[in-house]
Amino acid sequence: MKAFIFAAGAGERLEPITHTRPKVFVPILSKPLIKYHIEYLHKCGIKDITIVISPKHKEYFEKHLSNVSFVTQQEDLKGTGAALKSTKFDDEALIIYGDVFIPSEDIICKFLLQKDNAILGVKVENPKEYGVLVTNNEGNLTEIIEKPENPPSNLINGGIYKLSSDIFSYLDKTKVSERGELELTDALTLMAKERTIKVIQYEGFWYDIGRPWNIIDVNKWALDNLEFSKNLGNVEDNVKIKGKAIIEEDVEIKSGTYIEGPVYIGRKSEIGPNSYIRPYTVLTEKVKVGASVEIKESVIMEGSKVPHLSYVGDSVIAEDVNLGAGTLIANLRFDEKDVKVNIKGKRVSSGRKKLGAFIGGHVRTGINVTILPGIKIGAYARIYPGAVVNRDVGYGEFFKA
Amino acid sequence: MKAFIFAAGAGERLEPITHTRPKVFVPILSKPLIKYHIEYLHKCGIKDITIVISPKHKEYFEKHLSNVSFVTQQEDLKGTGAALKSTKFDDEALIIYGDVFIPSEDIICKFLLQKDNAILGVKVENPKEYGVLVTNNEGNLTEIIEKPENPPSNLINGGIYKLSSDIFSYLDKTKVSERGELELTDALTLMAKERTIKVIQYEGFWYDIGRPWNIIDVNKWALDNLEFSKNLGNVEDNVKIKGKAIIEEDVEIKSGTYIEGPVYIGRKSEIGPNSYIRPYTVLTEKVKVGASVEIKESVIMEGSKVPHLSYVGDSVIAEDVNLGAGTLIANLRFDEKDVKVNIKGKRVSSGRKKLGAFIGGHVRTGINVTILPGIKIGAYARIYPGAVVNRDVGYGEFFKA
Amino acid sequence: MKAFIFAAGAGERLEPITHTRPKVFVPILSKPLIKYHIEYLHKCGIKDITIVISPKHKEYFEKHLSNVSFVTQQEDLKGTGAALKSTKFDDEALIIYGDVFIPSEDIICKFLLQKDNAILGVKVENPKEYGVLVTNNEGNLTEIIEKPENPPSNLINGGIYKLSSDIFSYLDKTKVSERGELELTDALTLMAKERTIKVIQYEGFWYDIGRPWNIIDVNKWALDNLEFSKNLGNVEDNVKIKGKAIIEEDVEIKSGTYIEGPVYIGRKSEIGPNSYIRPYTVLTEKVKVGASVEIKESVIMEGSKVPHLSYVGDSVIAEDVNLGAGTLIANLRFDEKDVKVNIKGKRVSSGRKKLGAFIGGHVRTGINVTILPGIKIGAYARIYPGAVVNRDVGYGEFFKA
Repeated sequence: MKAFIFAAGAGERLEPITHTRPKVFVPILSKPLIKYHIEYLHKCGIKDITIVISPKHKEYFEKHLSNVSFVTQQEDLKGTGAALKSTKFDDEALIIYGDVFIPSEDIICKFLLQKDNAILGVKVENPKEYGVLVTNNEGNLTEIIEKPENPPSNLINGGIYKLSSDIFSYLDKTKVSERGELELTDALTLMAKERTIKVIQYEGFWYDIGRPWNIIDVNKWALDNLEFSKNLGNVEDNVKIKGKAIIEEDVEIKSGTYIEGPVYIGRKSEIGPNSYIRPYTVLTEKVKVGASVEIKESVIMEGSKVPHLSYVGDSVIAEDVNLGAGTLIANLRFDEKDVKVNIKGKRVSSGRKKLGAFIGGHVRTGINVTILPGIKIGAYARIYPGAVVNRDVGYGEFFKA
Repeated sequence: MKAFIFAAGAGERLEPITHTRPKVFVPILSKPLIKYHIEYLHKCGIKDITIVISPKHKEYFEKHLSNVSFVTQQEDLKGTGAALKSTKFDDEALIIYGDVFIPSEDIICKFLLQKDNAILGVKVENPKEYGVLVTNNEGNLTEIIEKPENPPSNLINGGIYKLSSDIFSYLDKTKVSERGELELTDALTLMAKERTIKVIQYEGFWYDIGRPWNIIDVNKWALDNLEFSKNLGNVEDNVKIKGKAIIEEDVEIKSGTYIEGPVYIGRKSEIGPNSYIRPYTVLTEKVKVGASVEIKESVIMEGSKVPHLSYVGDSVIAEDVNLGAGTLIANLRFDEKDVKVNIKGKRVSSGRKKLGAFIGGHVRTGINVTILPGIKIGAYARIYPGAVVNRDVGYGEFFKA
Repeated sequence: MKAFIFAAGAGERLEPITHTRPKVFVPILSKPLIKYHIEYLHKCGIKDITIVISPKHKEYFEKHLSNVSFVTQQEDLKGTGAALKSTKFDDEALIIYGDVFIPSEDIICKFLLQKDNAILGVKVENPKEYGVLVTNNEGNLTEIIEKPENPPSNLINGGIYKLSSDIFSYLDKTKVSERGELELTDALTLMAKERTIKVIQYEGFWYDIGRPWNIIDVNKWALDNLEFSKNLGNVEDNVKIKGKAIIEEDVEIKSGTYIEGPVYIGRKSEIGPNSYIRPYTVLTEKVKVGASVEIKESVIMEGSKVPHLSYVGDSVIAEDVNLGAGTLIANLRFDEKDVKVNIKGKRVSSGRKKLGAFIGGHVRTGINVTILPGIKIGAYARIYPGAVVNRDVGYGEFFKA
């Protein structure tokens, strides 16, 4: 069977991390999200994988993935329906939303055993924010209602489908939605009136990575579920490691470093001396954490450097960032209320009392920079030494005061 | 015999520490000053102890002390005479000024053996600042002169009396003084003309805790006089402890911490990793000193946190304070002159070349805050991230620049 | 034979280091440059050494050197010719430019064996910046051309001569040059027409210390050529020392310090705890590097202190400097271009991507000070706490913002 992964979304809500990478390349420990999908598909025996991408990400995808095909989604038509329209299959196909994380191949394999059309149903606590599934007595889908005020159930669309090629005819009858997108879920509601669409229920960990702090959360989940520790690095004497830690090959950890697991320290990273790596730190690869630096519950991506006298807590730092000596990130409001973040122009509560900053790829901060909680710094921005960053900084902006 | 401890003073000169606690609750190592008084009285066999307090501190005292009685001093009448007026006793009583520290019960027990009225005489180097005792040939009191320009001797009123109830009649004849207070010492001068008041001389450590830096001094004295070290805490490997140190129960000290005694680390405190605790540090209880933090000659009170990359020297920090990452306190002027402090509206030299800040209870500083020498920050104040605090900050004030 | 060392230059290009010391007192590891000259002369058997100095440095020289004579150069006549005019010798003499470093006595001894006049010829890659030697078929000097646009060879004047007293007569015929100096090289060109001046070629390490960053370079060379490690200090446990390190007498190194050689730690210096000393650090003597401080490729002179939470990279710090807690020195531009420095009013590229600051003697920085790359801070300057130093600071200036 063919499988299609929808990965054409612009990922605006995940900015600034998506300034320099497609949304599905958000890392979970060492690997980008999309590689988990591909790996699970392979494990279920599916080899013919096509990823639906945005034309602007073509080069990035081709550089970072191999043994998969790509189709580009038309730029003038948005939505999951548009994504499906860019695919082609005869008989039937498996479809996966690329920005959803389910940490196991089991559910995918289960779809392959279905004769009928099928959709993943996930029970969540906040169904209002998703497409809610309405089912008949037999448990089959009758309707999908997007973000209802009064959800009829807490069973929502989990973002995996097995569909016969009939879906294309329903899609042709589907109108563009109020928010201007062609919705696959609308086509499914039409299809459900005439065909059987089974709802395959799932109750394990399911995560929609929609906001930048979700990157912290999903990595936190992954660390909480580490089954073992591993130490392939070069660890000097007088390094303390407590709790679970994955330390990959060619990692150098200098004396006086204190590590409290669970943590993930990716290959070729350099730590210490005298640094403090606290629980839920993920350094994906080639990350440098230097002398007298403290990192806590943060994801720091490949090639980034926090070399001297910094505190980074509850933050996400994309690739090739350099924080000047003494750069500090605040992660707590004075009033200890939930930290707010600007998402697509709106001020949104993160639901977190402790939340630091989101720093895009290739950012450079000067020495002694102060960054307030919930701040986003766009890729390629420069922050002047000694500056207090008290508002979001745009892509490539030079922030002085 | 009944004992009365005078503890109704407003403690303005000890602000901001007294913003959230009565003056007599200044800590000496683990214990507030008043508990030393009570303990010494108990050791001398006195059980009937009454503390003269200000009505506004009633709740605080009742919460923090047990097995003692309280009387409140009238708010419209000030002074030690007014304090005495609020007491009642028949025969005779022992009276102690609550803000004076004498680290032993011996002198108190000695008063109990006196048949006559008695007053403590202490020899000091700067009698001008105190009530100076004038004595006759037999060494008995003839007069007390408050802060004389030309002191007749260096023997001053040490703040402990044994008095017969006759004192009340002399008090009735005493007029309110120029500074608007009813002075017990004026009544004693009257009494001395007609009755014997013995002067009991004392030459040991006697300390009047009148200015905020005295809190450092008195704790320094206590540490210098530690008779032993004690380590009841959980100390990890690679922790260096030099000199005398009291480490109480349930203290956690993480690797890489370097402690130079004498120091006192109160119960449930957390230290490290890689922090530097220098001589004359007192952490009363539940204090957190985090990674790459240096503390020197400072008193930090219960529940306060200095979690990341800070330097605190020659300072007093009251309870439940949180210093943001990288908050630094300067403790030396460029000209290396004595640091000055505002005391009740006047600029006063502390007599110390090295003096940091006085931070009231519940203060929060943002990250990367800079605090200049001799600064006072009122309780509940908030300091904006990156701010340079170059003037005193009021109670509850939000200081931005 | 008499030897003369020319050391009267004002050293403006080496400011602010020369604000408080003559140029020839730039340290190389533990010793000032001029002491190397004297030592090498002694090794070649020369005991009659006279140093030509500026009158304003008389006291400094007399205090710091013994067993040598001094003559002062007239203040109204500049240049190497003027320096020679202030000397007196009969027969012949050896002359050395004081600001040139050749780390061996061999070349000096070689000059003593010459019967003829002789001049040192050094092969360099950038002859344009020096006096270029023109020679005849026999390899003897015919002319010296100062800073030629099109150098006839890459053999330059290395700053060592053996000269007969005839030179004085040629000097009398020499005119003051366009830049207003009496040039010894002009006199030599005249002499070369009538007398033999041998060119003694040298191909080893030769270094003209003309710009402040050269102080880093020459010390770097010295460290790269350490032949052994030495540890005479008091090194506590849990101190890591990698690579070559010279640790002199009465040095104290506290636990948790991490040293990566090659480094030189001069006598009576104090390091740590938990500090990080990286390659090419030179602490000449009595230097204090405190807790959680990182030093890299920097020369720090006698009595200076970097006590708390600082980063100092690629910098030169003169004597008796105190950096306030958290003072940070940036050493990299955002654009990663070569750092520029103001030299005698001109903006000059240092040719270094990483270059920090040059801090004159007796400077005090407040806490939390930020210093940008390539900045010069004049001797006795004061930097206000929290200031961002983004321009050069003058001698004795108080810099606030």
